[in-house]
Amino acid sequence: MNPKTVLTTALGYYRENRERFLAEFIQFLRIPGVSTLPQHKADVRKAAEVLSEGLRSLGMSNTELIEGEAGRNPLVYSEWLGAPGNPTILFYGHYDVQPADPIDEWIDPPFEPAIRGQDVYARGASDDKGNTLILLKAVEGFLKGVGRLPVNVKFLIEGEEEVGGAHIESYVPHHPDKLRADAAVICDTAMFAPGVPAITTGLRGLVYVEVEARGSAHDLHSGAYGGAAPNPLQALAEIIAGLKGRDGKILIPGIYRRVKRPSAPELAGWKRLPFNERALLKKEVGARALEGEVGFSVLERLWARPTLEVHGIRGGFTGEGPKTVIPAVAAAKISMRLVPMMQPAEVIRLLSRRVKALTPPAIRTTVRPLSQAPATVVDIENRYVKTAALALEKAFEKKAVFVRCGGTIPIAGLFARYLKIPVVLMGFGLPDDNLHAPNEKFHLPNFYRGIEAMGLYLDLLGQ
Amino acid sequence: MNPKTVLTTALGYYRENRERFLAEFIQFLRIPGVSTLPQHKADVRKAAEVLSEGLRSLGMSNTELIEGEAGRNPLVYSEWLGAPGNPTILFYGHYDVQPADPIDEWIDPPFEPAIRGQDVYARGASDDKGNTLILLKAVEGFLKGVGRLPVNVKFLIEGEEEVGGAHIESYVPHHPDKLRADAAVICDTAMFAPGVPAITTGLRGLVYVEVEARGSAHDLHSGAYGGAAPNPLQALAEIIAGLKGRDGKILIPGIYRRVKRPSAPELAGWKRLPFNERALLKKEVGARALEGEVGFSVLERLWARPTLEVHGIRGGFTGEGPKTVIPAVAAAKISMRLVPMMQPAEVIRLLSRRVKALTPPAIRTTVRPLSQAPATVVDIENRYVKTAALALEKAFEKKAVFVRCGGTIPIAGLFARYLKIPVVLMGFGLPDDNLHAPNEKFHLPNFYRGIEAMGLYLDLLGQ
Repeated sequence: MNPKTVLTTALGYYRENRERFLAEFIQFLRIPGVSTLPQHKADVRKAAEVLSEGLRSLGMSNTELIEGEAGRNPLVYSEWLGAPGNPTILFYGHYDVQPADPIDEWIDPPFEPAIRGQDVYARGASDDKGNTLILLKAVEGFLKGVGRLPVNVKFLIEGEEEVGGAHIESYVPHHPDKLRADAAVICDTAMFAPGVPAITTGLRGLVYVEVEARGSAHDLHSGAYGGAAPNPLQALAEIIAGLKGRDGKILIPGIYRRVKRPSAPELAGWKRLPFNERALLKKEVGARALEGEVGFSVLERLWARPTLEVHGIRGGFTGEGPKTVIPAVAAAKISMRLVPMMQPAEVIRLLSRRVKALTPPAIRTTVRPLSQAPATVVDIENRYVKTAALALEKAFEKKAVFVRCGGTIPIAGLFARYLKIPVVLMGFGLPDDNLHAPNEKFHLPNFYRGIEAMGLYLDLLGQ
Repeated sequence: MNPKTVLTTALGYYRENRERFLAEFIQFLRIPGVSTLPQHKADVRKAAEVLSEGLRSLGMSNTELIEGEAGRNPLVYSEWLGAPGNPTILFYGHYDVQPADPIDEWIDPPFEPAIRGQDVYARGASDDKGNTLILLKAVEGFLKGVGRLPVNVKFLIEGEEEVGGAHIESYVPHHPDKLRADAAVICDTAMFAPGVPAITTGLRGLVYVEVEARGSAHDLHSGAYGGAAPNPLQALAEIIAGLKGRDGKILIPGIYRRVKRPSAPELAGWKRLPFNERALLKKEVGARALEGEVGFSVLERLWARPTLEVHGIRGGFTGEGPKTVIPAVAAAKISMRLVPMMQPAEVIRLLSRRVKALTPPAIRTTVRPLSQAPATVVDIENRYVKTAALALEKAFEKKAVFVRCGGTIPIAGLFARYLKIPVVLMGFGLPDDNLHAPNEKFHLPNFYRGIEAMGLYLDLLGQ
């Protein structure tokens, strides 16, 4: 089969099998593999098994579930190395999903996928089951349609992306030979806008902590003790208010020391993007106004500035009606997004020190790190990045843009550091996919085009 | 039967029936009548029925459950008016209890009463089932032992004390004739210390609100939107931190305008009380230090200064592990304790205005009042108060002290205002009874002595 026929066959296979691909996508979405919640342990495993069975059925080799320490979710590994002399691509995705709460705000149940218009709604549709399945289906077109792939391919799919990725983080550094490749393709990002494919050239890092505050030995009645007993919820409020100013500046001494602004050309590129601040406000955020650090554009705030957010505060009484309790213990979940050069360990140290400094004398606080990852930057001159841009342009009939992403994909830094290979970040979600929120969705035309783009990419790399 | 024999007979009856009284107390404590939680509606009613059956079996007249509007818990009413020419006492208690959470921190299940040492542990033991039962048993000693009471007695027992008391609040103003009495005895307070009986001469009032903050239209991912989307949890933290200073001063303009310090004699009386600040810190509060408004003694802070407390903050994610959500909505439960002369409606107005002023531009806040009651003061020169002090002294062989109470009993103000009668506040809990907290208890010797004290009181009033 000549090279051109190979590509035509694969692309034909994609088109002919759309309905089945969609049915398989929907089946995959039914699995409530919420890695944050212990009660979904078996579902998480189920998702891994479905993937490994899928990979095995394609004719991939050495497909296995790599088990970690007790309690860890397995890594799904698989390889096809039948193109000696050609490049090897390491494909990454994740099969675990975020919790679905607040469950009340879903139009359809989060694990009963619903198709409305051209979108499929379900938890994990965009983050990251749609993208992960695109990788499998792109490979399927060659292996089932043609009988072989243009390049060598390895899959490493994890099930702990939403809980800090401890398994893959401990696995990758110890298995550089098994994972040896020429480039890694991470399929866990979004397009810039509908019809505008994107390659992500930078990711923010993350530090996620729980700040626990303890006051009295047990819960107290605010009538009997209000005015004498310390209130850990009040203390947490003061601490949180003391961590970030009304101007969006993080009030942690030293936190901006390593922060550098993006290069002038990169900033200029962002200015040319079809970005509409009003659309972000009205269609995606839906608030009265945007917030953030004064003196920076929205894109710079989202992509290239550190941020601090509080995600939840527990303690006391939050049910219906009035309960006049002064809780003994309260805790806040707080995270920071980091930009290149910021060191997670140092950030945790500075944050912890600031929390201590803000803690009232009658309160004891402890800062417990739950997750951390440095930021990532990508070299856009690399062959694997440039080829990706070409494949995207062909599939979407539109030039790919180079953007950054405010989110965090810890594995990107891990691959770069331990496998010493370029990392290509391309994915097919949309900015309004409601990641980590109710009514998460995936735009189905992007599912099909994403498969084509990934097929084109493999074909181009094999030439 | 001569007067002396009447008293001796009643006191004898109390002693002979201790075991049965305790068994009935324990049965009463088994009823999980949590008025805050809709799922306990039937249990709350059960508690009312047990009381009304108990009153009926004593030979009281016109015993009834007074039904309110749909959803309201019944008032238990009963009367004995066989002593014309003698005073009429209106007895008040409440049969509803606080929620039991955090349930994990109970040594025994909250509705399976356990006796350890001389205490019975159960939700509602001290607040207010023990005190309420004392009233019934004091009456029983006369009606069953002697055949008649020394004075006329009316009972009005509510089931919404822990949820704002809407039913009794609407009932009392419209039924002054039915409730006509010479004094009201409210049995819902504590002794000053073990062995030190107390009459409460002042109660703080309460304003309880829920402050809801709305940012975006739905939950957002902090990676994708952190740096641009407003965070209502951050806003609430800033609002809470802006409502009270580190020095314990409430930062609401005008809030201290009506606050007056207690009289010099009252303050001098408090200084003579066997109050041990260190014991309060170590045995009751168990924190590193006490907190509160600078420049005032602990007793003054607890009894005669307004306070502001946050009781719970909901919104976002508070489960295990990291979830990087920026919630669309968050809400804080906040209450203030009021001192005499502060007007609840005015306090709500000032508080709401301050919350608005502290709300960031991108956030919408609403302040929803859940409960309110003014503070109460009692005239200690009144006959019914003085006689109560005498009865307490006889029963406990120790002079009763006059104290205030930091808590709120809205019904006290209601009786004073609409029935225009003196209100006597005496109760038999102890300061460390864990009201509204896990492991609530009631000291059984106080249960028996409380019954005697209340019997002595009725006897003295009848002379």
